[in-house]
Amino acid sequence: MTAVPEGIDTPEIMIDRNVLERNVERMAAAVRSKGLQLRPHVKTHKVPEIAALQLAAGAVGLTVATIGEAEVFVEHGAEDIFIAYPLWVGPRQAARLRRLSSRARVAVGTDSSEAASTLGASLADAAGHIEVLIEIDSGHHRSGVSPTRALEVARAAERAGLRVAGVFTFPGHSYAPGMPIRAAEQEQQALDEASRLLAASGFDVSRASGGSTPTAFLTGTASATEVRPGVYVFGDAQQLELERCTMEDIALTIAATVVSRHEGDQFTPRRIILDSGSKTMGSDRPAWATGYGRLMDHPEARITALSEHHATVVWPDESDLPALGERVRVIPNHVCLAMNLVDDVAVLSNGEVVDRWRVAARGKNK
Amino acid sequence: MTAVPEGIDTPEIMIDRNVLERNVERMAAAVRSKGLQLRPHVKTHKVPEIAALQLAAGAVGLTVATIGEAEVFVEHGAEDIFIAYPLWVGPRQAARLRRLSSRARVAVGTDSSEAASTLGASLADAAGHIEVLIEIDSGHHRSGVSPTRALEVARAAERAGLRVAGVFTFPGHSYAPGMPIRAAEQEQQALDEASRLLAASGFDVSRASGGSTPTAFLTGTASATEVRPGVYVFGDAQQLELERCTMEDIALTIAATVVSRHEGDQFTPRRIILDSGSKTMGSDRPAWATGYGRLMDHPEARITALSEHHATVVWPDESDLPALGERVRVIPNHVCLAMNLVDDVAVLSNGEVVDRWRVAARGKNK
Repeated sequence: MTAVPEGIDTPEIMIDRNVLERNVERMAAAVRSKGLQLRPHVKTHKVPEIAALQLAAGAVGLTVATIGEAEVFVEHGAEDIFIAYPLWVGPRQAARLRRLSSRARVAVGTDSSEAASTLGASLADAAGHIEVLIEIDSGHHRSGVSPTRALEVARAAERAGLRVAGVFTFPGHSYAPGMPIRAAEQEQQALDEASRLLAASGFDVSRASGGSTPTAFLTGTASATEVRPGVYVFGDAQQLELERCTMEDIALTIAATVVSRHEGDQFTPRRIILDSGSKTMGSDRPAWATGYGRLMDHPEARITALSEHHATVVWPDESDLPALGERVRVIPNHVCLAMNLVDDVAVLSNGEVVDRWRVAARGKNK
Repeated sequence: MTAVPEGIDTPEIMIDRNVLERNVERMAAAVRSKGLQLRPHVKTHKVPEIAALQLAAGAVGLTVATIGEAEVFVEHGAEDIFIAYPLWVGPRQAARLRRLSSRARVAVGTDSSEAASTLGASLADAAGHIEVLIEIDSGHHRSGVSPTRALEVARAAERAGLRVAGVFTFPGHSYAPGMPIRAAEQEQQALDEASRLLAASGFDVSRASGGSTPTAFLTGTASATEVRPGVYVFGDAQQLELERCTMEDIALTIAATVVSRHEGDQFTPRRIILDSGSKTMGSDRPAWATGYGRLMDHPEARITALSEHHATVVWPDESDLPALGERVRVIPNHVCLAMNLVDDVAVLSNGEVVDRWRVAARGKNK
């Protein structure tokens, strides 16, 4: 008995369309019920068919990370897109943004006066067609300015001819056990403070954008107007171990075959080797994770090492090792990396392959 | 002053052709001088032009990890290929192997009697056209059998109609500080023991194949006939930190732009953010590594975190932070992952872009 259909060659990404649709609907309903808008981050899937499901469920637009992703989704009909990234824009990037803004409503991020000035200068007379959101650091300490510095960046953007539409933040420090609630509180504080400072100086803060699947159900509504979760469509082993989803919510697995099998001895671990490695799963592994992913039907197993084409799965003594040739479903730690590694995916419904979707924005990472 | 040519948009992989050619020649000469044969692992680069350089320098054939990679390189003229992987072969994989074996000399790995039997049965009357090498575990404890069990697998392969050509091992435990010499010794012992046992039972052990860039200069010659290093063509941050190459040997860097810049304070690190993240660099990070890669011209900097499109680079107080918009060269931890993330790369000579190479086997991971 296997949950991998016969027609699948491994390693291959399988999307359970029914679970996917349920995830899309649930997030849409939760965000709507709070009076927030949903602008899902499509870097997670890079698939126009999934973006269409999200828009049909009420998303106000899409979030992307790169100009290249924006180009693909606008090509597929997206009308409202936010590049949630502090772009550094030279002439070639400016030309691409100008073309995009002639076909869709386009917003981009910025987190410094210098980047905002350069953006405005590069866009020249097209600057007024691009909205900017000032990126705020709400505790992740990656990009973004402190809320108290949002005003100086907004003024530089305005001087550069850009339309300041609001602020955004990514509470990435939510990705740790026990952190989602605290990170969501800090997200709210940061958005509130930055929004208030901008509004007090006459800026029309029409958008205050929060982020992240771990916090999307928690984002405060005092100032936030929208959220940008991405991973929620599929779930993954990180979300499972952060208890932000359950096994029933996992819509993406990687079909893999047991290619090597070892009962182990005093010197070597009891283990199986799967043919899905870092070149199909990605190798993200936060310090708090139990391994490099999980097995859908074997929660007791641990993926202790990943090579490019091998997952080493250590097996508890109490449980029989799967047979050689058995096909299993692997839940990667981080679905966004897995999707970026393949050209297309198998779409399943009730255990049968019903479609294939092309990962149209695969590799569009600049 | 930047070492990133103006025509490059970031993030982008740049290959220094002169350094690449020097690396190719040096490994070829070192292996030849020991009387071993070189069968480079082309999963590292997936580029036919680089395989051609390796063959021109005297490589006897190519090593790949998957049937898909073998198909690409045979399509581009490779005549002798080793799929160094314990394949589990069903009817579709068997059909692909049959086609390959009609166009090139093909060897595959196996590490169990059951996989060997299944391989032979799937190949049916084509079994005799495929060579098999028995995979030996020399201490990495991934796939492979102990040397003492090589004979039973070889006998099963022979019964299944396959041509047993020898043994192979991957001393992957060489990837840790202080381990290369010890791993190379264990590699030699394992190949020696397995070869001796097979030969004593009448097998013609024409190939005993070792592996890995950290050990390739160390592989013992008592039994080994060939080595399969891959990373040596480019070098990477892992090899640097293992002291298996120097900065002068680094042939692959990722051009990246400083998109965010923070002097830091008592609560936040002094840092820059680059636009090259895990979707262009891969996120392998062994516990002993100083970070997620290195900066070519700033050895004092540390990449402390990778997001999909951000590298967080913490900067020492003694050294000026690079300016916003400055372009830097990043050395990824593991080049094999970086190459699998892009469709093509820029080829540089003396600091100028002179060519572009397509990563023809990108994504061919099954």
